[in-house]
This record gives sequence, structure tokens and C-alpha cells, in this order.
Amino acid sequence: MKNFILQNENGIYFECGYSCDNAIYISLGSETFFITDGRYTVDAKENIKNNSEIIISNDLLKETRRVLKKSKIKKIHFDPNDFSVATFETLSLKLDIKFIQKPNFSKHKRIIKTEDEIQLIQKAMELGRDGFVKFAEYVAKDGFWKSEQYLAYMAQTFLSQNGNYDLSFSPIIAINENSAKPHAVPTSKIYQEDDLILFDGGIKFERYCSDRTVTFGNDYSKLDIYQREQRFSKYEQQKVYDIVLKAQQTAIKKAKLGMKASKLDSIGREIIEKAGYGKYFVHSTGHGVGLDIHEYPNISARSDFILEENMVFTIEPGIYLPNEFGVRIEDTVVLKKEGAIIL
Amino acid sequence: MKNFILQNENGIYFECGYSCDNAIYISLGSETFFITDGRYTVDAKENIKNNSEIIISNDLLKETRRVLKKSKIKKIHFDPNDFSVATFETLSLKLDIKFIQKPNFSKHKRIIKTEDEIQLIQKAMELGRDGFVKFAEYVAKDGFWKSEQYLAYMAQTFLSQNGNYDLSFSPIIAINENSAKPHAVPTSKIYQEDDLILFDGGIKFERYCSDRTVTFGNDYSKLDIYQREQRFSKYEQQKVYDIVLKAQQTAIKKAKLGMKASKLDSIGREIIEKAGYGKYFVHSTGHGVGLDIHEYPNISARSDFILEENMVFTIEPGIYLPNEFGVRIEDTVVLKKEGAIIL
Repeated sequence: MKNFILQNENGIYFECGYSCDNAIYISLGSETFFITDGRYTVDAKENIKNNSEIIISNDLLKETRRVLKKSKIKKIHFDPNDFSVATFETLSLKLDIKFIQKPNFSKHKRIIKTEDEIQLIQKAMELGRDGFVKFAEYVAKDGFWKSEQYLAYMAQTFLSQNGNYDLSFSPIIAINENSAKPHAVPTSKIYQEDDLILFDGGIKFERYCSDRTVTFGNDYSKLDIYQREQRFSKYEQQKVYDIVLKAQQTAIKKAKLGMKASKLDSIGREIIEKAGYGKYFVHSTGHGVGLDIHEYPNISARSDFILEENMVFTIEPGIYLPNEFGVRIEDTVVLKKEGAIIL
Repeated sequence: MKNFILQNENGIYFECGYSCDNAIYISLGSETFFITDGRYTVDAKENIKNNSEIIISNDLLKETRRVLKKSKIKKIHFDPNDFSVATFETLSLKLDIKFIQKPNFSKHKRIIKTEDEIQLIQKAMELGRDGFVKFAEYVAKDGFWKSEQYLAYMAQTFLSQNGNYDLSFSPIIAINENSAKPHAVPTSKIYQEDDLILFDGGIKFERYCSDRTVTFGNDYSKLDIYQREQRFSKYEQQKVYDIVLKAQQTAIKKAKLGMKASKLDSIGREIIEKAGYGKYFVHSTGHGVGLDIHEYPNISARSDFILEENMVFTIEPGIYLPNEFGVRIEDTVVLKKEGAIIL
């Protein structure tokens, strides 16, 4: 695919090593163009790693059309998810060029990570784990009688190291019945002793994301979150936790090159189903991680992906009992010849 | 405009008093539909304020097509900025309905605020100002030798009241030459005594945004940020600040009902031009504020809007001297018969 056009920030970064929130990137094979506005002139010149021609304009679409017209190309590829109807119409109006839809082509290009990319994600994971450790220490010492909102703020503080790192997403902090919502938003609910608390968060290191989830029990004396064992005060919480843990660890252990992603999804799912909680595992097993927090491959029952070396993805089964509680355990792994390695 | 379809979260919230990050709203006049997935069933039922039929599905577009087909309508309006090429094609494929483009129709509907909305924005502004005061106190006491990134983290802490409130946007903290970038991103640059520091931030109260900018000088003994006077150590900083302040205060004083927004833009701009800094005022005077941080009306030289009662917008002239420093002073105002009132 020689000729393509991109608007997505991470997609552009992947192509040329720089991006910003107002840019269009055009590839015409050996010739590439980075079009942005005057706010980013200096940064673009300093950071673009290939030989893209940098074009500064207040009207990016007009410049894009000018480049395309001048190029005399007959066709160009684009991702129909990457452009609004309005932008695409302005871009393509009366141009004698065929725009060919290639849904998610940038995510497909990014699915196998380089060793450099894997190292960045590993670094992001390490920094992220530091945040989890600090959060666990904080919860054990000062967390009681704080709200989910406040604990989420503290989670941000620890993950970002006081603003030094951007977050992959707003962390989820969910207590007891709120943890039964897979995408819970922190509320004013107060954390008390013996509560179950779910913490899903990650940071970015040089733009690459980390992603991790811990469901904390109540053994505050040894909240070693590198070790996945947790103790819960309620019998069913412990039972459900141990099932999810078995599902997660088994999936990690059995992931291998050449396996269908749908097969990997089924490994943990079958464990949860056999334990009688199948209908409470309401999402897929995982997703790719990279510049975006959600990339390819999808690890789901309907996924067509085959697992290859140097794919990076999450393994995060969960059980969600409405109005009671939820458990999710998540690691991000890289797939190697020897299997899945937790980053 | 009886029949329309919306995907934008704030646009949907405005229609029915509830929204989430995965929803489609259809209005067919007296009949309205809110389509979302199972995660939001309970919240949607509890919070939707009109009589919208709530439809839960894992395939929002399929349900949307079903509703549209069943309705037998001949045409429907949509905002071409609100739908990607991919989504729109899936939505409209082989439907015998004419989709009529109405760019930004939701923002046009929201341009005149109700008294309730004005009160929410006022509350957001009050809470936001508290954050500015706390930040000023912090800077005077402990801010020296901290990085922009750390100060931005502290700004978030004060604005959000430790995570209690969402922010309108990631606050800008920019020192000396970094403040010459209107959309500066916080860096590792260290704040020292006598530095100029620009702080642009806001919070959301019940989804409504606040927006405010202060450029701090070095008179730490009375950082009364409700009063706009500031003292700077460098002559040109003081000179530029006083010009921007005069431009901003004059624009606020002269804004009135029936005035063209472009005329309001010119009031501050002429003051800056006459002082010889015209080419360094590189953006428009302001923008509407509401559910979105950038709404209508635009207060710019090319704006066609006429100012009406209960419009809410910012007045934020600035002067940006590349590689030296920048000054911006911003308030959010509501326009009333008696003129612009700072919220």
C-alpha cells in the first residue's frame, strides 16, 4: 500500500516518529508529507524522523488537496474510521482521485511490535506497577473512609508520578457492587475495611501504553501486588477471585505462536464456564496494546487473528455479579517463541 | 427540524438529560429513542429526562437502522462532523431515507443558555476560581524549583479538588518562553522566582464547563487573582500585560446585545494593534462555553454571529512574543441586557 492518507495522531506518529493533535500525513511511496499548523512548526522540524516534507498551514485540508492534485496519483487509501463525513467530503470534493477504503489499516500495520516498541511498553508496565505498589501501600495505610473518586485521584497521582507521565486512560477504582460494572466510573462511594476494590490503570512511556488490573482483597499486611494471590473476607468473593485467577494464569501459560486468538479466548472462558460463571464473563479476554490502549489483536471469541511473535496484548478475564461485586485480573504480555511473557 | 440523529455525547445529553460514551439518539418529533449497550441500562433508565424509548443492544447501528426503517420517515438530519465515513455508510446503507447534512446543528441549538445552564456554568467558574486561588497560594509558598509538569499536576489537584470534579481540559502551565505558545504542553522546565507563569484551566460542574486564564507576575505577597493587576520584574512583560489587560477589560465593558461577534473581536484587537503588538495576537478573542469547552458563538474577526442575551463565551485576548513570553487573560462571561457579566 504505497499511497495513503492518515489523520489519526498515533497512526501518524508510527509513520514518522512525531505527531500532534492537528495534522494530516500523506504517503506517496518514497515521498511523504506532514501537514500541520503554525503551533507545531518547531516541534515537527525537530522530531520528524523520516524525510517527510513539512507543510505549515491554517487550512490543512486545502494543503492536502493541493499536494494530492500536484502528485497526479490516481488512487489513495484511507481508513473510513479516521475521517468524519464532513472532513472526507471537503478533502475529496471534485478530485480526480479514487479514495479506497482500508478500515483500520494503521492498526494492522502496528500489530507486530519491534523490540524497541516492546521495551517501551515494558518500561511503561514497570512504571505502572510502581504506581500499583504505591497505591496498595496507600490503601492499606490511609485508604479507609476515602471515596472512589478520591482513591482514583490518588491512583492517578501514583501512576503519573505527580504528573510526570501521561495516563493510558482514566483509572478505574470500583468498590464492591461498583466493581460489577466492567467500565465503572468512580463515585462518591466510601472504601471501608474488608471491601473488595478493583483498580484498572496504566501509563504512557514515550507514547506507548501500559494496562493492568488488580482486584484487591483485605490482607493488608502483605499487599504484594506482584503476587496475584489475594485474600477476601467473603466466601464468594474468594471463590470467584480464585476462578478468575486460574482462568487468567492458564490463558497466559497456554498462549503460543500460531494459536487462534479465539482459541486463547476460549481457554480462560471454559474455566469460568465450568465453574458456573460463564454468563458473568461479559467481555472478551483481551486486546492489543501499543500507541493506542486498544489495538490489534482482539482476543475474543469472534476474533480472526492468529497469534504471532511480538504481538503485545492483555489477558484480562473477569466475572461480574450484578449488584454484588466483580473481579478482573489483567496483565499485558508479549508473545515469544517460548510463550507469553508478562511485561 | 423534527427528525434528526445524534451520536455526540454532549449533544445527546442536551436533548434528554443523560448521555454516555456509546449511544445514538434519534428524534422523530414527539417520538425519541436512546440506543445504548447493556453497561448503561440502569443509568439510562434512571436519568433520561424526556420520554425517550431506551433500546439496549450490542449493535447500536443495527438497532438504529431498525428504528429508522420502522418509522417510515422520508428524511432525517445529521451533523457530518458527528459521524465517521465508516459509521455513516453502515448506518445509511440501502435505507430509503434521505440524510440531510446540518453541520453543527446541536451547537447551534445550545447557543443561548437557560438560566439553569448559566447557574451551572457560574458554579463551575466559582469552583474553578477556588482552584486558581489555591494554586496561587501554592506557587507563592512552594512553587519554586518545581517543573511545569509538576505544577500542572498541582493545578489539576486544586481545580479538581482531589478528583472530585472533572476538568474541562488538561490545564496549561507555561513559564516564560513556553507561555509564548498559545497551546503550550507542560514540560520539565523549572519555575524560578520572577518567572512569568501562565495558567489556563477549568472544571466541569454537572457536565458544564468553566474556562479561565491567569498570567501570574512576581508580586507573591498579594496574589489576589480576583483582581487582575499583576506585577512583573521585566519591563516588557509589564508593558505587554497591561496592554492585554486593557484589551480584555475594554472588550468586556463594551460587549452588548445585538453587537456582531466580529465587532467584539475588533475592540480588544485594536487596542493591541495600536500598541504595536497586533501581529502577536494570533488567535481569536473567544469562544462559547457550555457542555463543550468550545461552543458557539465564536468571537473572531470572521464570525457571523450576532451577540444575544444569555450567550456565554470567553474573552481572552493575548500577546505571544516567540522565544520570549506570552500573556493571556481570560474570563467567561454571560451577556445580559446590561452587558457582559463575568461568571
